[in-house]
Amino acid sequence: MTLAGRAVHEIQESLPGPRVVLGHGAPMTLESGAVLGPVTVAYRTWGALNDARSNAILICHALTGDQYAVGAHPITGKPGWWELMVGPGKPIDTDRFHVICPNCLGGCMGTTGPAAADPETGDLYGMSFPVITIRDMVEVQARLLDQLGIEKVMCVIGGSMGGMQVLEWVARHGDRVVSAVPIAGAARHSAQNIAFHEVSRQAIMADPDWRGGFYYREGKRPESGLSVARMAAHITYLSEPALWRKFGRSLQDRYAKSFGFGADFQVESYLRHQGASFVERFDANAYLYITRAMDYFDLVAEFDGDLANAWKDTGTRFLLVSFTSDWLFPTSESKEVVRSLNRAGANVSFVEIESDKGHDAFLLDEPDLFATTGGFLDSVARELEI
Amino acid sequence: MTLAGRAVHEIQESLPGPRVVLGHGAPMTLESGAVLGPVTVAYRTWGALNDARSNAILICHALTGDQYAVGAHPITGKPGWWELMVGPGKPIDTDRFHVICPNCLGGCMGTTGPAAADPETGDLYGMSFPVITIRDMVEVQARLLDQLGIEKVMCVIGGSMGGMQVLEWVARHGDRVVSAVPIAGAARHSAQNIAFHEVSRQAIMADPDWRGGFYYREGKRPESGLSVARMAAHITYLSEPALWRKFGRSLQDRYAKSFGFGADFQVESYLRHQGASFVERFDANAYLYITRAMDYFDLVAEFDGDLANAWKDTGTRFLLVSFTSDWLFPTSESKEVVRSLNRAGANVSFVEIESDKGHDAFLLDEPDLFATTGGFLDSVARELEI
Repeated sequence: MTLAGRAVHEIQESLPGPRVVLGHGAPMTLESGAVLGPVTVAYRTWGALNDARSNAILICHALTGDQYAVGAHPITGKPGWWELMVGPGKPIDTDRFHVICPNCLGGCMGTTGPAAADPETGDLYGMSFPVITIRDMVEVQARLLDQLGIEKVMCVIGGSMGGMQVLEWVARHGDRVVSAVPIAGAARHSAQNIAFHEVSRQAIMADPDWRGGFYYREGKRPESGLSVARMAAHITYLSEPALWRKFGRSLQDRYAKSFGFGADFQVESYLRHQGASFVERFDANAYLYITRAMDYFDLVAEFDGDLANAWKDTGTRFLLVSFTSDWLFPTSESKEVVRSLNRAGANVSFVEIESDKGHDAFLLDEPDLFATTGGFLDSVARELEI
Repeated sequence: MTLAGRAVHEIQESLPGPRVVLGHGAPMTLESGAVLGPVTVAYRTWGALNDARSNAILICHALTGDQYAVGAHPITGKPGWWELMVGPGKPIDTDRFHVICPNCLGGCMGTTGPAAADPETGDLYGMSFPVITIRDMVEVQARLLDQLGIEKVMCVIGGSMGGMQVLEWVARHGDRVVSAVPIAGAARHSAQNIAFHEVSRQAIMADPDWRGGFYYREGKRPESGLSVARMAAHITYLSEPALWRKFGRSLQDRYAKSFGFGADFQVESYLRHQGASFVERFDANAYLYITRAMDYFDLVAEFDGDLANAWKDTGTRFLLVSFTSDWLFPTSESKEVVRSLNRAGANVSFVEIESDKGHDAFLLDEPDLFATTGGFLDSVARELEI
């Protein structure tokens, strides 16, 4: 099964895992003022909720992630994107914690997004879907927890865009968050990151098969554009040393240069594969909307230019994690958050992990990340007598 | 006048400045073994050649540069790309030196490239143009100098891809080069840089108007693809601090977010402008061929894994320059060259200039660059009694 060749919304309807309609079918007012809905949320859970309902951990996924953090992905068949972190005996221990991972608002794996049908008209949204924000994503998650009867979570955790959501969670619903772990995140999207996102969006919108965003109707998909977008983004997820270590200037299946435009170098072949496999599982319009939400994220501006205002009297415990070779969400951006937390007198730990794996390190085998996160969660759980 | 909307080769024929056919009309064998030609070279000169023919300086331009280093560009009308460096009383002093700047092989400003007509058939080359290399570019320049009666140059200088050519010049024709100034260059293209180039090529080739490279015939041009390619590349020419200083998260002509997909942020608007203006003056196929030449460049491999072999018994004086915030051709890559020159016992100066302007610093107002280059050239000239 792939998202290519079939209408994406049909697949969304058939994906494994629960889906709930929020607010008893009432629409939701977004940060922009637009009214959307009713909103459907697709999510997955692992581990049992305890009687005190105190052991819930909410995972917020990154730009191209989804609710399938654990277990085979229904489209690609590959392992979940955070198998190393989540499971029995893992740092996010599903023998001890009740773990919830929803697909984000605007996504393409069952939660309401541009490929979903407008409940009022039955038409697919396409570009008539309203622009959403990180705050809207968090609001949807908060309403999902309401509906699941979970008043407080012992932790909200996530990397990259997930880290943005973690910060927004504490800023907006701090009383519901015992602890927060933003990994490789930032309080606002940088000019360079906006620039890279804009290139990706232009690549998608330049593809004639995008059809002004209404490609669903015509059975088309802007696969070339989305593939180029993914290739460009993928470079930013890695570090130069990691690329050099992994590929160097090695040639692909060839003893010498071909003097042509095939994928001579292994790094070219790798990138092409990243692009081609991504389009099988992701919707181009969802990519547009979610990147826009990230670009709009600016918690500093939201709190009048001083991030410390976001954490006034916070009782939430924080663990921030960054990676030395991450140039997309560099350590300096996590440190900006840490400084604001210190100004607000918050309980905060910060770890910069030595790694040459770049931004993607939060998804990879990083023992320091697992030890730090596991130790932090254990300490929070013991305080709560879990 | 723009390169858009008219056949590019017609414009090439009408550009100001001399053009010469190399080798009395004989074709040239390329590094790949392919035979090309006869090859035409378009170039510009400034300042007079002295009687001893000893005061020539050869400028090698970068990927998207051309021969119009000084004076209004015939297509854009903008000042030459190196006005700050070249001119009367400037570091490359045209009152004292005879300066030559040719358009590179594979380019689109009058030198033979994919948009030129195959002299044998009269058809435009398109993708039947052979893949070229940095060594081929240098070979064409060497033959141009032969034809101009210049046996030795007092300096070969260039930034970025120009820096690659400078290194190739000394490695292949060291006896003809009194001094060499590679700026923000490298002895081989890194995996990350190959990756960015591959994204650019895929963006161009994904544009249906590319037509397999034969768009000239059909009066089409892959403008969207080339624009996306330029936008992605442009990010790599700047530094994150420079982008932040220049744009931050400032909004464009708006007091608040539009909650749409227009260019809300100034950085988006700037990038779109970079893409749109680039396609007016550059040919998409030339972009493919020149990026490929850069990717193939590996002087370390050419000299059996030890770059010092390239400089055996060299009498050439070197000045290498890098910039602290250049992450495309970082200082470490210039240092690799410096170490090899030291191993070979060469006469080498190296300056790392403090700048937050990124790779593009070599084109911008960098007083340290001008002082260093000017001082070096003056010293070389005085040794030659110029």
